[in-house]
Amino acid sequence: MGVMRSWVAGADGSDFPLENLPLGVFRRADGKACIGSAIGDSILDLRAAADARLLQKELAAACREDALNALMAMGRGASQALRERMQELLSGAGARARVEPLLVSRAGAEMLLPARIGGYTDFYASVYHATNVGRLFRPENPLLPNYKWVPIGYHGRASSIVVSGAEVRRPSGQTKAADAKEPSFGPSKALDYELEVGFFVGQGNRLGEPIPLAEAERHVFGLCLLNDWSARDVQAWEYQPLGPFLGKNFATTISPWIVTLEALEPFRATALKRPEGDPKPLKYLDSADDRASGGFDVTLEVWLRTAQMREPVRVSRGNLRDLYWTLAQMLTHHTSNGCNLQPGDLLATGTVSGALADSVGSLLEMTRRGAEPLMLPGGETRKFLETGDEVILRGYCEREGCARIGFGECRGVVV
Amino acid sequence: MGVMRSWVAGADGSDFPLENLPLGVFRRADGKACIGSAIGDSILDLRAAADARLLQKELAAACREDALNALMAMGRGASQALRERMQELLSGAGARARVEPLLVSRAGAEMLLPARIGGYTDFYASVYHATNVGRLFRPENPLLPNYKWVPIGYHGRASSIVVSGAEVRRPSGQTKAADAKEPSFGPSKALDYELEVGFFVGQGNRLGEPIPLAEAERHVFGLCLLNDWSARDVQAWEYQPLGPFLGKNFATTISPWIVTLEALEPFRATALKRPEGDPKPLKYLDSADDRASGGFDVTLEVWLRTAQMREPVRVSRGNLRDLYWTLAQMLTHHTSNGCNLQPGDLLATGTVSGALADSVGSLLEMTRRGAEPLMLPGGETRKFLETGDEVILRGYCEREGCARIGFGECRGVVV
Repeated sequence: MGVMRSWVAGADGSDFPLENLPLGVFRRADGKACIGSAIGDSILDLRAAADARLLQKELAAACREDALNALMAMGRGASQALRERMQELLSGAGARARVEPLLVSRAGAEMLLPARIGGYTDFYASVYHATNVGRLFRPENPLLPNYKWVPIGYHGRASSIVVSGAEVRRPSGQTKAADAKEPSFGPSKALDYELEVGFFVGQGNRLGEPIPLAEAERHVFGLCLLNDWSARDVQAWEYQPLGPFLGKNFATTISPWIVTLEALEPFRATALKRPEGDPKPLKYLDSADDRASGGFDVTLEVWLRTAQMREPVRVSRGNLRDLYWTLAQMLTHHTSNGCNLQPGDLLATGTVSGALADSVGSLLEMTRRGAEPLMLPGGETRKFLETGDEVILRGYCEREGCARIGFGECRGVVV
Repeated sequence: MGVMRSWVAGADGSDFPLENLPLGVFRRADGKACIGSAIGDSILDLRAAADARLLQKELAAACREDALNALMAMGRGASQALRERMQELLSGAGARARVEPLLVSRAGAEMLLPARIGGYTDFYASVYHATNVGRLFRPENPLLPNYKWVPIGYHGRASSIVVSGAEVRRPSGQTKAADAKEPSFGPSKALDYELEVGFFVGQGNRLGEPIPLAEAERHVFGLCLLNDWSARDVQAWEYQPLGPFLGKNFATTISPWIVTLEALEPFRATALKRPEGDPKPLKYLDSADDRASGGFDVTLEVWLRTAQMREPVRVSRGNLRDLYWTLAQMLTHHTSNGCNLQPGDLLATGTVSGALADSVGSLLEMTRRGAEPLMLPGGETRKFLETGDEVILRGYCEREGCARIGFGECRGVVV
């Protein structure tokens, strides 16, 4: 697969070349929330493109909305058609005169949430993360017996999902130190990030009608970066027996651009090979196709900038490929009891950690719950996040002979 | 407080007298989803009332919507004003000629979900339920150390909430018998109901701005009955460490009529008295007012009709008053970390069980996980629900000198 050329300056070789064309929602100078696609340093205003009659009728209608839900509901065929049309418009010299006026500078654009997120579900798909965390809380029994059978997940809070750049307030909550007799209420002292990937549901399913594994990816619209901010002290005291609640639902940050599955095709990978002795997944979660190409080779990085630093520093680097469960397995499992997913629903992988020490996706793991503080250049150390710390998630795909596909950034400052 | 008279036949003494006026959404003969209020055997069509200029302007606009969210967002003042106006219209002889044509028969009306439910959160507020369930799963340690400090809750799934009358399909899922070597996938063999009360959020709060206890009830719009259908075998295998997921999210049924807090005022009760030795709640969850009148005296019943029965039989009776945490405490706790609630969000109490054997709100508790089957008239027995079983929840308030306030029914048949 060769690299395509766009007439948009700065597109080739950037996070957002012609092969990417991620979708998002931005606020236009006239105040309207508009759907757009990132190309180089610009945004192609798709509402304006629709108004200029550059899009086929149904696509134009969906692109005039203020969120991506309508386009998502149309299914993979529609996002494929929109992608092809945008590639035509942004590469053909013939269209340039009509399309160039529809470009907006990314630098000044305010990005909004890309969709109205009805339901948000967070999984726990990294066996490295589950083992690291399990070891801290249950040293004798780090990985629970269900882990290798069930893609463990739980419902998160959709209302507190914010877009990259929004400040994150340190939450207060009940915590109880191990040696304290009673809990107390106050600001969390163990605020953490979690490096995750979110994936948006395109076409949904009806209540009572599970989505089989072979069809699961047809219901995935695209991917984004996701920071599942976590107050570890609140979480530790509250999470039994019904799971995380206030330790998580004060804020979740996502990157503004949804990278479509079409853009990720060249970066498919084999799913994580299960170690000898691990069980084979049950039949509803197992297929040769999914094993062969259900993974995605996306490099994921966490960068941190404290209030004292001029530039952020990278604190970890992992890969989406390292998950124990594929996106398709998670989605199929979610609907296996008949639960209905709707266009715009967000699923997330859970913290993406790898096998290596520098590939873990949370401070909890990196510092072993604060026992081994992270050393930063300049002499600062971190057990958990401090006020003024900015966490920046980055993601990208790179492969010889292919255009780089970037996810952009997912940023948040603790205030 | 005396009993008010309505000119609507059958209103006085019914579940839905002039003192109740619960709000819901029904499908009108012309196919439109309309907001209405139940009065006796009728529904007052509030869209029609708005169109007939019988409502003040802002109320009229909210009542022309196809869901209650806009009215909810206006806050308690608006629901109070609407209530007073409806009482005028439905009691004054002068208005009768104009209002009578706006009544629709309840018998033939299709009820819809009353609101677009953005977020659904389920609590665990009955200490009897928590203890009963804990004893089955952790005999040595039934009640976890956090229970008496934290109003435990978790996020549920909003998309699979259905309205009374909808069939409930038995879900499939992964289960593992205690003596089995491996789990398997198939229809749940331990389908259960949970008797709960749901409460809808009226005015919301902004992200980062907790709602103090003294203001919590101003954010509650009203209450309904809720059946949190549960597949116990799926739940038991999946729920650690992140809580219930597929064991719950295949269906949740709610009653169609939201009984407002205004209607429940005469049935306020003292909160459950904490036994000697229990901790005092932390300050953010404690107030003299809430202790004195944060409870509600609502009788709650579970009725069961198997496929062989002509009439349902009552299998339990409890009371909402018996919760360990008040509605206000749950709502305040939910926002205590800054989590934002939105108009139309649904919170639920968790299973309402009382101290007595016949006041437990689930089969899990009643049959001790199937060990002591429930004997039904006619000789049938039940460990868990069987296909064709219909579960009917009922709720009502009764007090000498007050009109009865009914919740109507929350029904569902297992198919």
